[in-house]
Amino acid sequence: MSLSPTAAVSHGDGVIALTTGDVRVPVHPERGAAAPRRDDQPYPPPAGGAELRSLVAEHASTGAAEVPPDAVLIAPGARVAALVVLRAAAEGGEVLLPTPYWASYPTVIGAAGAKAVPVPGAVGTGVRAADLEAARTPATRAVVVNSPRNPDGAVTPSEELAAVAEWAGHHGITVLFDEVYRGVPLRGGHAPSALDLFGTLPEHCAVLDGLSKSHALAGLRIGWALASGGLLKRAQGLASHLVGGVSAAVQATAAEAVRDRGLPERVGGPLTENMHRAAKTLDAVPGVSCPEPGGGIFLFPDLSGWLAERAPEAARRDPVGWLREEHRVAVVDGAAFGAPGHVRLSFALPAERLDTGLGRLRAALEGGGHG
Amino acid sequence: MSLSPTAAVSHGDGVIALTTGDVRVPVHPERGAAAPRRDDQPYPPPAGGAELRSLVAEHASTGAAEVPPDAVLIAPGARVAALVVLRAAAEGGEVLLPTPYWASYPTVIGAAGAKAVPVPGAVGTGVRAADLEAARTPATRAVVVNSPRNPDGAVTPSEELAAVAEWAGHHGITVLFDEVYRGVPLRGGHAPSALDLFGTLPEHCAVLDGLSKSHALAGLRIGWALASGGLLKRAQGLASHLVGGVSAAVQATAAEAVRDRGLPERVGGPLTENMHRAAKTLDAVPGVSCPEPGGGIFLFPDLSGWLAERAPEAARRDPVGWLREEHRVAVVDGAAFGAPGHVRLSFALPAERLDTGLGRLRAALEGGGHG
Repeated sequence: MSLSPTAAVSHGDGVIALTTGDVRVPVHPERGAAAPRRDDQPYPPPAGGAELRSLVAEHASTGAAEVPPDAVLIAPGARVAALVVLRAAAEGGEVLLPTPYWASYPTVIGAAGAKAVPVPGAVGTGVRAADLEAARTPATRAVVVNSPRNPDGAVTPSEELAAVAEWAGHHGITVLFDEVYRGVPLRGGHAPSALDLFGTLPEHCAVLDGLSKSHALAGLRIGWALASGGLLKRAQGLASHLVGGVSAAVQATAAEAVRDRGLPERVGGPLTENMHRAAKTLDAVPGVSCPEPGGGIFLFPDLSGWLAERAPEAARRDPVGWLREEHRVAVVDGAAFGAPGHVRLSFALPAERLDTGLGRLRAALEGGGHG
Repeated sequence: MSLSPTAAVSHGDGVIALTTGDVRVPVHPERGAAAPRRDDQPYPPPAGGAELRSLVAEHASTGAAEVPPDAVLIAPGARVAALVVLRAAAEGGEVLLPTPYWASYPTVIGAAGAKAVPVPGAVGTGVRAADLEAARTPATRAVVVNSPRNPDGAVTPSEELAAVAEWAGHHGITVLFDEVYRGVPLRGGHAPSALDLFGTLPEHCAVLDGLSKSHALAGLRIGWALASGGLLKRAQGLASHLVGGVSAAVQATAAEAVRDRGLPERVGGPLTENMHRAAKTLDAVPGVSCPEPGGGIFLFPDLSGWLAERAPEAARRDPVGWLREEHRVAVVDGAAFGAPGHVRLSFALPAERLDTGLGRLRAALEGGGHG
């Protein structure tokens, strides 16, 4: 088991890391840490505190759906929420995972006691119910629909979200709508949500979200699932055993962030500018295709033309290692997401760091040889 | 999947809850919560920050073993650390679980992708290598040795810890020494640690600990595993995908708590007094046997004599429900730990609350009928 490609690790002296999956635009102040407090003593409620569950329910109830506070399961990061929901829904069965997918999903699905079944799909195109039906077996218990998607930013249109929900309901399959990237208002707008489809979330549908991206709080480690009925009850039971609640201090910080309604826009503004500039820079490189994503915080350029026609031998063997060692810029290999030939880079970075990294990337790809 | 019996839930109006698994003696001040900070933005390092890993390594290096900071894997609660270590060690195999056991271990072992195999044992007696050998099969990959043990406070002697480590090494089995309760200095002393056995932790041994009990910080949700070699590497890889680090603010708070070297003694003093008083009170009830535990924060009285000879019919059917409904005192059924006929109650409570609960418990058990 190697580290997550997004893990906070050093890539070596002087390497500009574009591998990050957190949001690094300056929206929060410096502040000192606290000593232990009285409310650090007792176990927190296993599904989250009443205040934060209420705030999250209100935050989520912006579409057609009315989300009650009881539907909210707070977790120390959305991935832990995904683990307990998928385990509640799919233990012993198969989980369909449309390609390309977030590199940690196979591990999360494994810990959920299920088998990840990659579903072939096109980079830049959202999930399609027809592709899921083609991959369905009697063992299929759940499907992950991540929109906007990590790594390629593909957005699944509302009609297709509805088609997937209907297909899944018909076959007794649970859909985990992973909307972690949806809260980043790229170009000032939000991708469609599964919550727009229903007045009340049906039991076979759960929604995953958190503050890591939309509120630039990956370091706080807080996320949640919205679910209902027996699925929610089973997931909460698992969380009570496997997690035992989220730090009261973290929940209080999260509550303050959710109350700050302008925060996502303060994140989305600079990210939109970064995205335009970065996509334009990379798309202009011969042999590279870098469309703007529908949402999210990543570019996912296709280097396959460059690799086939222009790349030096060392870059063909290991493009990411070559970029890091020879050109001091770190990106994530698309193979980690089931899409070799691509690389993933974050544009949720301070402009100067992004531009330095982009400059090195362009020099590497245009020069072809050593940097 | 029902909630963990220790989960922070309401037991009903006016019920005194002795079910808790956190430490509730007044050692921390009141303090307000913080708004988001700059260091809440990036993902924390997957195994923990350098400062906290160093402090924990130093904290753990009190026995014979020298624990390097690199051996420390910080997690959002010791149970998450247990999950990744057991998954790294035992996925697809069996994990031996000496009885009685912490109620959440079967769920943790299940999420580790392994099968929990309860090993018969006596309440109040620690783990014995001979019992483990009798339960060993070709599929045995790991064993959990929890000392002092939840729920019964049984302490495994140093010679037996050594025998288990040797037996496990011989058979290629990993031992998870769960020492979460060891840091509470009951009667001013600590139970033996697996770290006393080795100069350097061997790869087939891991140690689990955290701040929930010893530092009265269950609400902070922080714990760790000490491990080495390939086991550590695999566990860190899993943690990087499944958890993604622990809140920087939580780690900073934890670091301050670990630096406060007198904190465990400030916890242990009142707990020792509570334990003496509570065990004496319950052991005096006809038909009840309540020895003092070797360590930990719980009493685990044997009610089987009382149930067979003196209990009213409703109490025989559901002793815990009867105590809660008729006598307004909540305890945990020993069946949740694989030891029916017992109940578990915490003495890590403010003295007044403990005494009110004990008074109700004694009145119920002595009166026999309605309270």
